[in-house]
Amino acid sequence: MSGSLWLLPVALGETPWQQYLPAATRDAACRLTHFVAENAKSARAELKRIAHPTPLRELAIEQLPKSPSVADIERLLAPLHSGHDLGLMSEAGCPAVADPGALLVRRAHELDLVVRPLVGPSSLLLALMASGLDGQRFAFHGYLPAREPERSRRIVELEKESARERQTQLFIETPYRNPALLDALLLTCRPETRLCLARDLTSGTESIRTRSVAQWKSTQLPNLDKHPTVFLLLADR
Amino acid sequence: MSGSLWLLPVALGETPWQQYLPAATRDAACRLTHFVAENAKSARAELKRIAHPTPLRELAIEQLPKSPSVADIERLLAPLHSGHDLGLMSEAGCPAVADPGALLVRRAHELDLVVRPLVGPSSLLLALMASGLDGQRFAFHGYLPAREPERSRRIVELEKESARERQTQLFIETPYRNPALLDALLLTCRPETRLCLARDLTSGTESIRTRSVAQWKSTQLPNLDKHPTVFLLLADR
Repeated sequence: MSGSLWLLPVALGETPWQQYLPAATRDAACRLTHFVAENAKSARAELKRIAHPTPLRELAIEQLPKSPSVADIERLLAPLHSGHDLGLMSEAGCPAVADPGALLVRRAHELDLVVRPLVGPSSLLLALMASGLDGQRFAFHGYLPAREPERSRRIVELEKESARERQTQLFIETPYRNPALLDALLLTCRPETRLCLARDLTSGTESIRTRSVAQWKSTQLPNLDKHPTVFLLLADR
Repeated sequence: MSGSLWLLPVALGETPWQQYLPAATRDAACRLTHFVAENAKSARAELKRIAHPTPLRELAIEQLPKSPSVADIERLLAPLHSGHDLGLMSEAGCPAVADPGALLVRRAHELDLVVRPLVGPSSLLLALMASGLDGQRFAFHGYLPAREPERSRRIVELEKESARERQTQLFIETPYRNPALLDALLLTCRPETRLCLARDLTSGTESIRTRSVAQWKSTQLPNLDKHPTVFLLLADR
């Protein structure tokens, strides 16, 4: 009898688990002894945060390589074949969303294994809910190009597509590059395009504001430097 | 002092709240006495499920019209101006995602009010995590056209865009039309396109499987008729 692959969301920041996990998610994680983690160190911090009943050194925690090979995937899924349930954890938020964990889930489906997603925090979804932008049509684009002129060219593309499809565009950046991305957005976007900046979601310094680009240019900007932020924009037709 | 607008996720099906809500989300909902709901009846069922400490008849629960006017929005937000916190609830899952609640959130930002999204279940995100499809780039398209040939035309468009942008496409259908949509997908999509069917998420009859269209054609299909389902596809280049 094969085990099941459990998808375990984890904290977005330093908060007690009761803030961001249903008791059922925490209980499911506490029943597991085998884990695959995007980052082993942050996985151990999470298992400590939820007070996993087994001493950490007795848990099997394997780290997922950034570009896992077919052999890596087979090795990481091996506990399932010996009948162990396996937990997949992202560095922050939901696994297999904006991280390489999806390759493991893909293989689990090919092997006809049971995949069990659990409820927990997603910065993308919290940002979308709170943005007041269109939640009926939206797209997540990951990271924009880090350099100019590619970055501004991509922003123009996303804004045009947003207007054409009436689609909210979500994207992220490495936190230390957030101020540069914000500058590029304010320089490039049309004045009436609405831009939401969703910073430090679920933490004590959470800040979520939606303004038109014209309004953002005439108000004090939030400090996004080194703060995890989701950027969302919606252009009018 | 104005109140804050709290975004309260609710159950996807009939399950105890400890399965799908963090204690913090449930506690926040229990502190509120003013609510705006996509559906007042299902909001009352949710407030009963989380054992809200105030008798239901003493709570102010306003229903959000399907196409709210500017006057509707002002009226619904009025408790915030009198200093009450206000909770926004969808019929299922997260408010302001795939429902008209975003208009209320939009107005709250215009009025510079504080918007507080809370963690809870989202069928779209659970389906995406569990699909094994690309979670680095994805788009939600709402409902596809209900009639042919528009529906199949739209499926072809989404499949082409998926291949071009390497983007997972998510969409939904009114549950009694799920079998017809599945038929159209199997008839229209390329054999190697991967299709995930994510049914009854978080409930006891949950079923999530990803197969190529060719594989789906040669296996028994899950029964989706009248079961809430998220459809996801990813086409190879």
